[in-house]
Amino acid sequence: MIPPVLFTDLYELTMAYGYWKEGMDSWDANFYLFFRKPPFGGSYAIVAGLDPALDLLERWKLSSADAAYLSSLQDSAGKPLFDPAFITYLSQLRLSVEVHSMPEGALVFPFEPLLRVQGPIIQCQLLESLLLNQINYPTLIATKAARICQAAQGDPVVEFGLRRAQGADGALSASRAAFIGGCTATSNVWAGQRFGIPVSGTQAHSWVMAFEDEHEAFRAFHRTLPRDAVFLVDTYNTLHGVAKAIEVAQELQLTPEQWSAIRLDSGDPLKLSREARRLLDAAGYQHVQIVASNELNETVIESLKSKGAPINKWGVGTHLVTGRPQAALDGVYKLTALRRPGQPWSNRLKLSEEDTKVSYPGLHQVRRYADGDLIYDISQPPGNPPSGVSIQGQPKQLSGPGKDLLEPVFANGQRKHSTLPLQLLQSRTRESLTHLTPAQKQLENPEPYWVGLEEQLNSRREILVKQQRSQP
Amino acid sequence: MIPPVLFTDLYELTMAYGYWKEGMDSWDANFYLFFRKPPFGGSYAIVAGLDPALDLLERWKLSSADAAYLSSLQDSAGKPLFDPAFITYLSQLRLSVEVHSMPEGALVFPFEPLLRVQGPIIQCQLLESLLLNQINYPTLIATKAARICQAAQGDPVVEFGLRRAQGADGALSASRAAFIGGCTATSNVWAGQRFGIPVSGTQAHSWVMAFEDEHEAFRAFHRTLPRDAVFLVDTYNTLHGVAKAIEVAQELQLTPEQWSAIRLDSGDPLKLSREARRLLDAAGYQHVQIVASNELNETVIESLKSKGAPINKWGVGTHLVTGRPQAALDGVYKLTALRRPGQPWSNRLKLSEEDTKVSYPGLHQVRRYADGDLIYDISQPPGNPPSGVSIQGQPKQLSGPGKDLLEPVFANGQRKHSTLPLQLLQSRTRESLTHLTPAQKQLENPEPYWVGLEEQLNSRREILVKQQRSQP
Repeated sequence: MIPPVLFTDLYELTMAYGYWKEGMDSWDANFYLFFRKPPFGGSYAIVAGLDPALDLLERWKLSSADAAYLSSLQDSAGKPLFDPAFITYLSQLRLSVEVHSMPEGALVFPFEPLLRVQGPIIQCQLLESLLLNQINYPTLIATKAARICQAAQGDPVVEFGLRRAQGADGALSASRAAFIGGCTATSNVWAGQRFGIPVSGTQAHSWVMAFEDEHEAFRAFHRTLPRDAVFLVDTYNTLHGVAKAIEVAQELQLTPEQWSAIRLDSGDPLKLSREARRLLDAAGYQHVQIVASNELNETVIESLKSKGAPINKWGVGTHLVTGRPQAALDGVYKLTALRRPGQPWSNRLKLSEEDTKVSYPGLHQVRRYADGDLIYDISQPPGNPPSGVSIQGQPKQLSGPGKDLLEPVFANGQRKHSTLPLQLLQSRTRESLTHLTPAQKQLENPEPYWVGLEEQLNSRREILVKQQRSQP
Repeated sequence: MIPPVLFTDLYELTMAYGYWKEGMDSWDANFYLFFRKPPFGGSYAIVAGLDPALDLLERWKLSSADAAYLSSLQDSAGKPLFDPAFITYLSQLRLSVEVHSMPEGALVFPFEPLLRVQGPIIQCQLLESLLLNQINYPTLIATKAARICQAAQGDPVVEFGLRRAQGADGALSASRAAFIGGCTATSNVWAGQRFGIPVSGTQAHSWVMAFEDEHEAFRAFHRTLPRDAVFLVDTYNTLHGVAKAIEVAQELQLTPEQWSAIRLDSGDPLKLSREARRLLDAAGYQHVQIVASNELNETVIESLKSKGAPINKWGVGTHLVTGRPQAALDGVYKLTALRRPGQPWSNRLKLSEEDTKVSYPGLHQVRRYADGDLIYDISQPPGNPPSGVSIQGQPKQLSGPGKDLLEPVFANGQRKHSTLPLQLLQSRTRESLTHLTPAQKQLENPEPYWVGLEEQLNSRREILVKQQRSQP
């Protein structure tokens, strides 16, 4: 069981301790979670991970065991790191922050607040690590899955990554996010049980090797699953394997319902799928599908599809669940505004020697139009016509009715809406992707999607940056 | 709570079902877990993940909720996927397999059995996905940590990766494996609580931004942790930040105990650490250390060390916990021998169009000598002098007394030894690495460590491959 308060980086606790010691526990803050670069060289990301994060927020409470652990921590002089009164304070603390978030399955672009946390600064700070952990990885994987499914052009894609994921709930999160991104099933049985994701799986090489020969292995597998036989044909030699599968099917007079597919798990998938298809067709097994697996990713699948490889279904493991070659979304969580008791919000800006690391101060919302997104300050909604300046400095007027993307999802210690079926989140992803043009959806070197700061917000930020930079 | 039987790929269950239906539940099998390529272009890997895997094996049991889920699964015709009698069988099944493993913290090389599972074939098969998940990732990360610590040449390295890991126990596994690999501490408080790993952390940019200026932020942080102040100096401009930290230290007359370090988290670490060092030294703060973080990995650290960057401590996050650019160890789990009731073991060989995917049949042990490792069949220990043929075909005689690496770790449903302190596993890693020459330890293009098949085993395998290849 994850202890939600301790599931954090220590510095969140030392900062919380500092805010408490300084009497800042009644100050409010506003933090954003956003990323700076779309993963995998694409133009977009797909939001995922929110619902499991809300589970953790709902049971966010320091247990007595957690409190005992914090009491045991020492500073470098061997003195208690935290004042006991602070640990008592933490034990009694219940979340009163408000969280707004883009919904799972939505498109999100660089620099857009994917999630906004507002409330007492101590609480906002203490949630940083947890939220980044819960959102970064699923968003990366939902995006990877969307790309892979796009490459597969509607063919079913099964997520096979349990064995290469980071531990048990790494695998579980991967299966969930991959399904949101568009995968049709997972090999992970726990993910099936926990989330209702369809599960899929047949046999490994060890099955074939456990029998005297492939004929016997295939016969036995047909006896095991008489209505669902998929034969793994590459244990010894792929095309011999296909021939033997055909022999067994003829011998047992398997009907189309009884023999659904063969699976290729090694070698050149283009050459082998073509040869296998020829053998199957020649023997009258036009209905038998070809499933491919083994080190697949969106680039390989796109290339195989473009060459007309007769593959009907794709099993993707390592590349999908590790988000290779990216492996992490660079999501960050930044303070953008602060409010002392009884005072108005004060915008906070972080400068940086690196221009893209200069922050976006204020309390923002994202509005999506037909031809781009505007980030605006909630106190100054976009004008008519709405217009803004992109991160790269290009001005633009947007058209069509806009739709605000950040929705209230958590307040008063509770989620605002009940958990949605994953199937619905998958449909939302599919629907979201129709908002992009083919050029924007290209896997490599896509046309960027236009995102800008609403013009008043942009001017205010420019002034703030100038002021801050001119300070000693 | 992870349901250990369902924490698997579906095909393990469909194969187990098949073995059960075919009456093969009394057959014994032997499986190996091994990998084919050392991660990160190095020569070695460090074993990790065993103890948490044994926790799962000890509570491996199908719960009634798990059984209900399996009963609900349907095949494509809408019929129950599994016979109810098989689910009853699974519910009553208790592990009787024996597991041998290399210890955590040991060096392991490509093609060596890192772990061996022997016992009823159904059980061996059902453990495949779980064991791969539990060993692949920690072994990858312990190896990455060892490389990073090697690059840091004895400087402390703190693991900072929680926010970029795959969910909660992805982060937890990463912290544990990183500590085994040599990291001195983690930012992950839960890992501190759960495993007793020292935790480390001070402040983020949000702390500095929450105050009127850096002076006040540093003063307040000193008030918070009066004996442990580390000042994060790069919120606005790094060298201005250093100057302000010095001003605050002078104003408050901080002693060496009270101000231990500054942290740099952006910009050019070589240039900034040199300039910061100069400013600190000139002000008489020679004792104040410099901590660096931000997108570090072993290559960057090695380069900074070689240029004499005055950095004393390293915080490594994303690259460490994602094992970038590798992201996954290519560990696999292969059947190597089978035994019907009352019969001797029969070796199983998997051919492949890809030569390196041809398997290593038999029941093996690994013996480590002064100048290399021999994989041998337990029925035929190495002769005197011990000799073998490497994976690449080079013969070699080995010298010195050998030491067998696979130890019994699990039998009769229980672990054979109690959990070892992580500190001991970290020491073992350090000790293990002394077995390698500097050329073998090079981060890039290292000299390979010699691993071979003991000569009798090698001959027997060659014959088996020839026989199998000549079959139709």
